[in-house]
Amino acid sequence: MCELLGMNCNVPTDIRFSFSGLIQRGGRTGPHSDGWGIAFYNGRGCRTFHDPHPSCQSEVAKLVRNQTIKSLNVICHIRRATNGRVCLENTHPFVRELWGCSWTLAHNGKLKGIKRRRLSHYHPIGTTDSEHAFCWILDQVRDRFPTRPRSERSLQRFIGELARDIDGLGPFNMLLCDSRDLYCHCSTNLNWLTRRAPFGPASLIDTDMTVDFAKETTPRDIVTVIATHPLTDHEPWIPMDRGSLVIFRDGLPAAG
Amino acid sequence: MCELLGMNCNVPTDIRFSFSGLIQRGGRTGPHSDGWGIAFYNGRGCRTFHDPHPSCQSEVAKLVRNQTIKSLNVICHIRRATNGRVCLENTHPFVRELWGCSWTLAHNGKLKGIKRRRLSHYHPIGTTDSEHAFCWILDQVRDRFPTRPRSERSLQRFIGELARDIDGLGPFNMLLCDSRDLYCHCSTNLNWLTRRAPFGPASLIDTDMTVDFAKETTPRDIVTVIATHPLTDHEPWIPMDRGSLVIFRDGLPAAG
Repeated sequence: MCELLGMNCNVPTDIRFSFSGLIQRGGRTGPHSDGWGIAFYNGRGCRTFHDPHPSCQSEVAKLVRNQTIKSLNVICHIRRATNGRVCLENTHPFVRELWGCSWTLAHNGKLKGIKRRRLSHYHPIGTTDSEHAFCWILDQVRDRFPTRPRSERSLQRFIGELARDIDGLGPFNMLLCDSRDLYCHCSTNLNWLTRRAPFGPASLIDTDMTVDFAKETTPRDIVTVIATHPLTDHEPWIPMDRGSLVIFRDGLPAAG
Repeated sequence: MCELLGMNCNVPTDIRFSFSGLIQRGGRTGPHSDGWGIAFYNGRGCRTFHDPHPSCQSEVAKLVRNQTIKSLNVICHIRRATNGRVCLENTHPFVRELWGCSWTLAHNGKLKGIKRRRLSHYHPIGTTDSEHAFCWILDQVRDRFPTRPRSERSLQRFIGELARDIDGLGPFNMLLCDSRDLYCHCSTNLNWLTRRAPFGPASLIDTDMTVDFAKETTPRDIVTVIATHPLTDHEPWIPMDRGSLVIFRDGLPAAG
């Protein structure tokens, strides 16, 4: 399986603290050493870093940990290969363009029979079930909405239906970003935590690191972190309900 | 304007030497300091690094220079913004998927009226003329060939026609990769150099660096480097003819 990390905020925020914890699980405190990747949204742009090597010893991960890359939406994934060999093209998050926006997806789980679903506009480059599911979701969204719909609610509802449909094939813990909202579908394991004023200190579980967010933030900042398993001790992580979709915008859940 | 760097080889090769020269022109020996990007192909996968900051002082560029990332095809670009503001989404190379393959494009030049060309499948995320041209090319290729054509020659000929068509709108120096071949269209400036046995030393123009390729290669290696302006002294760089398309595969020109 794999582990997921997402972040959604109301101000561009750097994810180095959470990222420093997660990457330990890619070969040191966890077995997810078959590559890793991260997508950062900045304005309309999206930059990704992908590495088929274990995150705990990756030079690219060291760069990401040492750079201040601020972003409103981040999706990160560390991989333990169950479907598709270890190689660059099977490394999440996957990226495609729809409506002139970058969409990204990372997935934890295993989907039986997803590859039998026919695709038209989007096609996988690698051989994972996850990328096939991503292409299928985008195909459906594109067919239903040739341009971005005015009604956000109808798009959100439709993505929820698609996620529930795929969930029927096996565990589908998913982080999906359309450049604006972060869609989190929980099939078995996803937890989230919102940090906002009054901020305090937090300590990572996987490595010896503590940050006092009161010193790093302004009182108006709202930052939500989503992870397969909590990354810190003594903070009120909320487990998502199985089978639920939570959509984050500006650091807060927008809809269920 | 901007500068381009491409590499096409018969064995996975690292581009650090040429890259070390090019990035000096992004703010130190040249004025192309409005961001830079690079795409490396590995197997079916493609990894990119994008940075809207000057390459000569970029931490991401330092990482790329210090890492051994071996690849059969590389496209790199340092930007001097003429069309579209300085931001991540306007940073080349651009990436899209077609036929389950990653396609990438970087462009040097300025295209008048390209944005009046209608798009259907692919849409720009940023505001550059270059990305619009890329989307238009992919639209045409996709319409003509819904799946990868058996005849490579017909695809090559068609891409040549499209490049010449766009060339009518202004300078269109282009590097385009379809995951297999590197298509280089010269409108005003592109030079190439093939290194093969017997290898010898080479020295960069823009920084004090010399490599003896005899120590870095095997006798069977064939490596072609393509650049807007030559990167080394005392090597036989070949200027491409204006208006010509040269397609490289396995380190050698495959067709004109």
